[in-house]
Amino acid sequence: MSLSLYDASIPGYVRMLRNLSAIFAKAEAHAAANGVDLQTYVDARLAPDMASLVGQVQLASDAAKGAAARLAGITSPSMPDVETTWAELKARLEKTIAFLETIKREQVDGDEDRTVELPLPGRTLTFTARDFLFQFSLPNFHFHIVTAYALLRAQGVPLGKVDYLAGGQSF
Amino acid sequence: MSLSLYDASIPGYVRMLRNLSAIFAKAEAHAAANGVDLQTYVDARLAPDMASLVGQVQLASDAAKGAAARLAGITSPSMPDVETTWAELKARLEKTIAFLETIKREQVDGDEDRTVELPLPGRTLTFTARDFLFQFSLPNFHFHIVTAYALLRAQGVPLGKVDYLAGGQSF
Repeated sequence: MSLSLYDASIPGYVRMLRNLSAIFAKAEAHAAANGVDLQTYVDARLAPDMASLVGQVQLASDAAKGAAARLAGITSPSMPDVETTWAELKARLEKTIAFLETIKREQVDGDEDRTVELPLPGRTLTFTARDFLFQFSLPNFHFHIVTAYALLRAQGVPLGKVDYLAGGQSF
Repeated sequence: MSLSLYDASIPGYVRMLRNLSAIFAKAEAHAAANGVDLQTYVDARLAPDMASLVGQVQLASDAAKGAAARLAGITSPSMPDVETTWAELKARLEKTIAFLETIKREQVDGDEDRTVELPLPGRTLTFTARDFLFQFSLPNFHFHIVTAYALLRAQGVPLGKVDYLAGGQSF
C-alpha cells in the first residue's frame, strides 16, 4: 500500500501544533512557578533580526493552513497577524488546528502531481503537490515549530525533545 | 498517482544535509571575514543543557542514516561520534550524504505498513514504516537541522530561510 498526500500532511501539522500547545502549557507553568512575565517569552527571539515567538507562531500557522488549503484546493482562511499576547498566540494555535481538522482526506488525496502555486514577493513558485509538500511545506513548517521550541528553551523553560515530538506524551 | 516512501524520505534527507553544508560554507566565509574562530561555532549551544553544534550535526546524521537504513531494511553504517572540529563536522555531513545516496528506491518502496522498531533506552518503539517516517523521523531530523541553523544564526552568521530551505539557491 502506498502513501497518501493527506497522511503525509494534515495529521502531522495538527500533531505538531498540538505539541506546541502542550509546550506552551509547560512554559506557562514554568513562568508561574518562577515569577516570569509571559510577555518575556512572547517577545523573545534567538537573534536580533529573527522573528520573535509571535512571528514563529504566526508563520507556523500560515505554513500549516496555507499548505492544507493548497493541497485541498481551497482558499486559506484569513488569520490577520494581530497577536501580541500569550493568550492570543494560544488562540491562534487553536484556530489553526480547528481549520486543519475541517480538511477531509478526499479533498487532498488523488492527484499528487497537480500544480501548486506559491506566490512570493516578486515571483510565484510552481510545484507539483508532492514536491510542494516534501521540498517546501514540511521543512518550512517544522522550521517555525522548532524555532518556537528553541526560543522557549533558550528562555529556560524545561523542555525535552519528547515535548517537541510528542507533546510530552510517550509515543 | 500516490506517493512513495522513498520520495517522502531519502531525497529530503539528502537535500537538507546539503543545505546544511551550504550553511557551513557561509558560516566559514563569515568567520574568515570577521576573525571568528570556527571553534566558537562548533561549541555553540542555544541553552546550557542543549547539545552543541557537534551534537546537532551528529544527531541529524544519526536521524537520517538511521531512518534510511530502517526504511531500507539494512543496518545503519556505524559513524562513531568522535567529531570535535569544524572540518570533522563537515566530513560527517558528507559521509552521511554519501551513505544516503547508496539507498535505492526499490529498497524502500513497496511495503509501507511493515514494522519498524526504534530501540530507545529502556524500551523499543514500534511503528509502521509510514508512521515512523511521518510521526518520528521527519520531525526529529528537521529538529536537528533547524537547531544547527539557529545556533549559527544566534552566533551572527548572516543566514535566511532560503539557506535552510534551498541551500541559498532559488527553488
